[in-house]
Amino acid sequence: MLNIGIIGAGRIGKVHAQSIAGHVRGARVKAIADPALNAETEDWAKGLGIPVISRDYRDLLADPEIGAVFICSSTDTHTPISLEAIRAKKHIFCEKPIDHDVAKIRAVQAALQGSGLKYQVGFNRRFDHNFTALRRAVAEGKVGAPEIVRITSRDPAPPPVEYIKISGGLFLDMTIHDFDMARYLTGAEATEVYVQSAVRVDAAIGEAGDVDTAAVTLKMSDGSLVMIDNSRRSAYGYDQRAEVFGSLGAVACGNDAPSTAYLSTAGGVTAEKPLFFFLERYMQAYAAEAMAFVDAVVNDTPVPVNQDDGLQAVLIGLAATKSAKEGRPVKLSEITG
Amino acid sequence: MLNIGIIGAGRIGKVHAQSIAGHVRGARVKAIADPALNAETEDWAKGLGIPVISRDYRDLLADPEIGAVFICSSTDTHTPISLEAIRAKKHIFCEKPIDHDVAKIRAVQAALQGSGLKYQVGFNRRFDHNFTALRRAVAEGKVGAPEIVRITSRDPAPPPVEYIKISGGLFLDMTIHDFDMARYLTGAEATEVYVQSAVRVDAAIGEAGDVDTAAVTLKMSDGSLVMIDNSRRSAYGYDQRAEVFGSLGAVACGNDAPSTAYLSTAGGVTAEKPLFFFLERYMQAYAAEAMAFVDAVVNDTPVPVNQDDGLQAVLIGLAATKSAKEGRPVKLSEITG
Amino acid sequence: MLNIGIIGAGRIGKVHAQSIAGHVRGARVKAIADPALNAETEDWAKGLGIPVISRDYRDLLADPEIGAVFICSSTDTHTPISLEAIRAKKHIFCEKPIDHDVAKIRAVQAALQGSGLKYQVGFNRRFDHNFTALRRAVAEGKVGAPEIVRITSRDPAPPPVEYIKISGGLFLDMTIHDFDMARYLTGAEATEVYVQSAVRVDAAIGEAGDVDTAAVTLKMSDGSLVMIDNSRRSAYGYDQRAEVFGSLGAVACGNDAPSTAYLSTAGGVTAEKPLFFFLERYMQAYAAEAMAFVDAVVNDTPVPVNQDDGLQAVLIGLAATKSAKEGRPVKLSEITG
Amino acid sequence: MLNIGIIGAGRIGKVHAQSIAGHVRGARVKAIADPALNAETEDWAKGLGIPVISRDYRDLLADPEIGAVFICSSTDTHTPISLEAIRAKKHIFCEKPIDHDVAKIRAVQAALQGSGLKYQVGFNRRFDHNFTALRRAVAEGKVGAPEIVRITSRDPAPPPVEYIKISGGLFLDMTIHDFDMARYLTGAEATEVYVQSAVRVDAAIGEAGDVDTAAVTLKMSDGSLVMIDNSRRSAYGYDQRAEVFGSLGAVACGNDAPSTAYLSTAGGVTAEKPLFFFLERYMQAYAAEAMAFVDAVVNDTPVPVNQDDGLQAVLIGLAATKSAKEGRPVKLSEITG
Repeated sequence: MLNIGIIGAGRIGKVHAQSIAGHVRGARVKAIADPALNAETEDWAKGLGIPVISRDYRDLLADPEIGAVFICSSTDTHTPISLEAIRAKKHIFCEKPIDHDVAKIRAVQAALQGSGLKYQVGFNRRFDHNFTALRRAVAEGKVGAPEIVRITSRDPAPPPVEYIKISGGLFLDMTIHDFDMARYLTGAEATEVYVQSAVRVDAAIGEAGDVDTAAVTLKMSDGSLVMIDNSRRSAYGYDQRAEVFGSLGAVACGNDAPSTAYLSTAGGVTAEKPLFFFLERYMQAYAAEAMAFVDAVVNDTPVPVNQDDGLQAVLIGLAATKSAKEGRPVKLSEITG
Repeated sequence: MLNIGIIGAGRIGKVHAQSIAGHVRGARVKAIADPALNAETEDWAKGLGIPVISRDYRDLLADPEIGAVFICSSTDTHTPISLEAIRAKKHIFCEKPIDHDVAKIRAVQAALQGSGLKYQVGFNRRFDHNFTALRRAVAEGKVGAPEIVRITSRDPAPPPVEYIKISGGLFLDMTIHDFDMARYLTGAEATEVYVQSAVRVDAAIGEAGDVDTAAVTLKMSDGSLVMIDNSRRSAYGYDQRAEVFGSLGAVACGNDAPSTAYLSTAGGVTAEKPLFFFLERYMQAYAAEAMAFVDAVVNDTPVPVNQDDGLQAVLIGLAATKSAKEGRPVKLSEITG
Repeated sequence: MLNIGIIGAGRIGKVHAQSIAGHVRGARVKAIADPALNAETEDWAKGLGIPVISRDYRDLLADPEIGAVFICSSTDTHTPISLEAIRAKKHIFCEKPIDHDVAKIRAVQAALQGSGLKYQVGFNRRFDHNFTALRRAVAEGKVGAPEIVRITSRDPAPPPVEYIKISGGLFLDMTIHDFDMARYLTGAEATEVYVQSAVRVDAAIGEAGDVDTAAVTLKMSDGSLVMIDNSRRSAYGYDQRAEVFGSLGAVACGNDAPSTAYLSTAGGVTAEKPLFFFLERYMQAYAAEAMAFVDAVVNDTPVPVNQDDGLQAVLIGLAATKSAKEGRPVKLSEITG
Repeated sequence: MLNIGIIGAGRIGKVHAQSIAGHVRGARVKAIADPALNAETEDWAKGLGIPVISRDYRDLLADPEIGAVFICSSTDTHTPISLEAIRAKKHIFCEKPIDHDVAKIRAVQAALQGSGLKYQVGFNRRFDHNFTALRRAVAEGKVGAPEIVRITSRDPAPPPVEYIKISGGLFLDMTIHDFDMARYLTGAEATEVYVQSAVRVDAAIGEAGDVDTAAVTLKMSDGSLVMIDNSRRSAYGYDQRAEVFGSLGAVACGNDAPSTAYLSTAGGVTAEKPLFFFLERYMQAYAAEAMAFVDAVVNDTPVPVNQDDGLQAVLIGLAATKSAKEGRPVKLSEITG
């Protein structure tokens, strides 16, 4: 039985706690820590049967029974907590983006070196039933060599502007999932990025120095071209689709809806819109990634999404940010030096 | 070049004239006849380049240049005109139902015997792209031995009650298409019929002695069970679907819509409703059946839907009518004696 | 916290135990009983944290902490255990069919009278996301008055012939779900049943006195016609669809698939087949029905599927069995006397 | 009755001749001209009832009965024939691209000035049922202000390399349809273009100085971003889809297939692949554009796709070609000077 500590009891920390409690055999949440702990969160944690509730994540790192931590705190804390956790010999599951700063990511990389510790990054979409079906088809050669990849990723509604300001910008906060998806689906690395972007959803996002609408093109090391489109606001809910087109055909996936029901009337044939929010949409994927992490820790096998995967997505995000600012294609080699 | 005479310039006569003029190579409409000819119809016929316009179908039968006639007049005239046309040595395309009276149908059958004349029945759905795809899959063994067949056939709106009164009733007028479809899809004969029916659309239909809603079960000679549902009124337009389920799987078809466009908004995902009316829906099928008939005449090959096919569908229709009246399953042998 | 005892540790008993352990707040499985308990089942129960494991369900009925039992044993034991459980003042969730014998069902009904105990029947499909969406559309008047209902229900593979022999036959074992679905979707009662059936899947099923393929028509008290088709074997997996057609349109649902992915190649456009087995397909529904039962017990509200619902479905099943044997439509009044 | 002359009896010239003969009321093909006329083409023309067959298009321009010409000859002849036709006072329908040379296009523009002649450009997709449904939804405000447009355009197989060499390159030959589609769907002008492209289908295309795979991003004057993907080879046939995403939702269209039939077996659920070739796919659109042209000539109304539309698409094509060569975004103002 692997004892897990959750660091950060915000939305995503709660998701992981519930996933582990409800679905992950061979692990339990022993503790949760959050400096901003309130009564409601304490009640929630007790209801879930979590024995230890703390305001200080160091309590978790000091507990010899705890074998692994989920770092679900704000992005700026990922690196310092990761380094402490490594020193405390805890396996780590870290939310995305692992950091905005490449130097810090490399410091964690160095600290992991030779430690024997697992470090998995929270790219949950790699565990989604639709995207895994796409990857499987590509890996089995069903579409031949990938030539064109299309990824649509649109959020139902933008986060608060206060969050936008510290988010690292659209490309490090939201598109980073799509950058990872491009690497996951093709099995190749990005070599060049071009971004066209705009502020169309909320002028306040522009005033905060960010964009909310983007068209991104990636050139990959296998010669395939990836096109990503993003919006911070989709009237019909969370829109998450992808397609891989290759020499033998294409494989694509649509959205998940609450049901398959459709109504035919004089006004047309109407189906339900996609699941509205990422928590509904990816509940199964969050459970699956936690299971995969526990499995890797318990059986000492490689994690399915490792620290370098976290780094590569950040590098593409930084190149995209540069492309948006400078209005030109940016090679990844410009970022990695 | 086969010269064709059209007998009856109502809706379906016009459809055939336009199909032949626009799509059928090797044939032309030389003449059209209708006792109720008016100025509008004459203009329409001239616009289509039809040389001869008459009030008397006997003019067409007397024309030695005319090789074939399409009988598109009212059902009660099908037999007498067929018999005259056979005497005049004209090939015949006759609309469904070929008659309500089995004895008359058998008289036509006898007259055809040894005449060398072609006689095709207007079961247009056998030429529809969706239903031919189903039949092809069944014939190629893709679903194995048929076990369950489902046919949905719903009209957008009921015909006038005046028409209902002379229509022969739902089973001879409307379901007759589905009876033919059951035979076409399975390649087997009906042996028993059971009908549950109701008046749900318009009480006036019930007062006219007919029904407007029906659930029909057929037992076929190959052991398959066929379920047909009918309504005289479908709010979302013409609904024409079928499914054949067998030992290896199932093949099914949906409706045709004006476009593949779908709109995703906060209210759902809405596609266009099916093509509303049978003329839009089956335009291609009408052209294809006319082509097949011309082809059979010109090349002296068997017609794809022959007089016996016309008879069998009427026999099932009579059994269904009896079942509806007597509230019990009726064997086909009760009808054929 | 409601303590639950599970009686019967076969497939469905295990499903309920896991649903309650994983998904139902406010309840826990305190005990499980099965006369044929083996080491594997004991391990499974321990892994799930079930404190009490017994060979005798009477141990559960005797436990004053246990407030409710799930009766998941074989059908012939449903009535005696129900009666004992009522005497022991336990709320009851009973699997379908509640019995094959109307007199016994009425005995349980009498015993429940005035007891203040809840009795829910395991018609899990009423809790499925697709069928609840259909019912909601009907209840909200989206399709107007129901006129035609179509239900397709095909199992991936037949059960062992040994099971068939004690199953009560297709109509009480399998179609019973569809009879309940007809009542659920329309909100009306069946008044007449007609069955056409056949042995097409396995001759051994016929030798056991049962059928494996059926076409059923129901006449409902609201005038709607229901058509059900069943097969014990579907090559492409579990096929569970329904459609309600009414004066304003139709609402229909399709199957659930493992993903939305589809592959386009020279050979066509291929999507995944439906989820193959009922456990995968209805996992969410099993959890939802357990939640609803616990909710009704804890809050003393009516259960969503009560004992009379269980009885009505059995009555239709008996009428259907009689119709299949006698080859004629059977009125429900012939069964209820 | 408008008499039409067809200049060029290649594939597209034949399509227009057949469309007009079969579907366009109020017009007939009086003559067809092609320097490379052979016996087969002459037979085809006679079979269609075209009275005049010539090797010299000047015969058509000299015929005072001919009111309009369809210019379907090779691209390099479009301008000289257009200028002669204008002098001969013929209305013009000209295939795309109208020329590769902006100066020549402007010369035709000048000649048309004040002539009172109609000049329609052959962007057939504007008349396709799917794309008109998308445009209608956008024009009616159903998706709000357009923000992201996605266009997929993939040919079943590349043309011969000999054709590629004189085609003007992918962007003027193939993507030009998508550039027009971007303008049609948004109702806005392109202001900037960025292209990522590759040779993935056939190395010979690269050796001919062209590309066969492309990812194009357009910035439009209304602030929307357009993403186009192209391939010269699609294993599953002609792939023509589009989506417009805006503040209120999205409207999208899929491909047309030969039928709606789908087969469910142990191997999955398989539908037919899209119509394979552009002639099948756009037959209805070719007829509709010819009808619209005849209508504009006969009723002296504006043509739906005018000479400036032809020019704008060429300008975007030239900018795209430049972007592909220089590896940077190109502003339209760089092309128009």
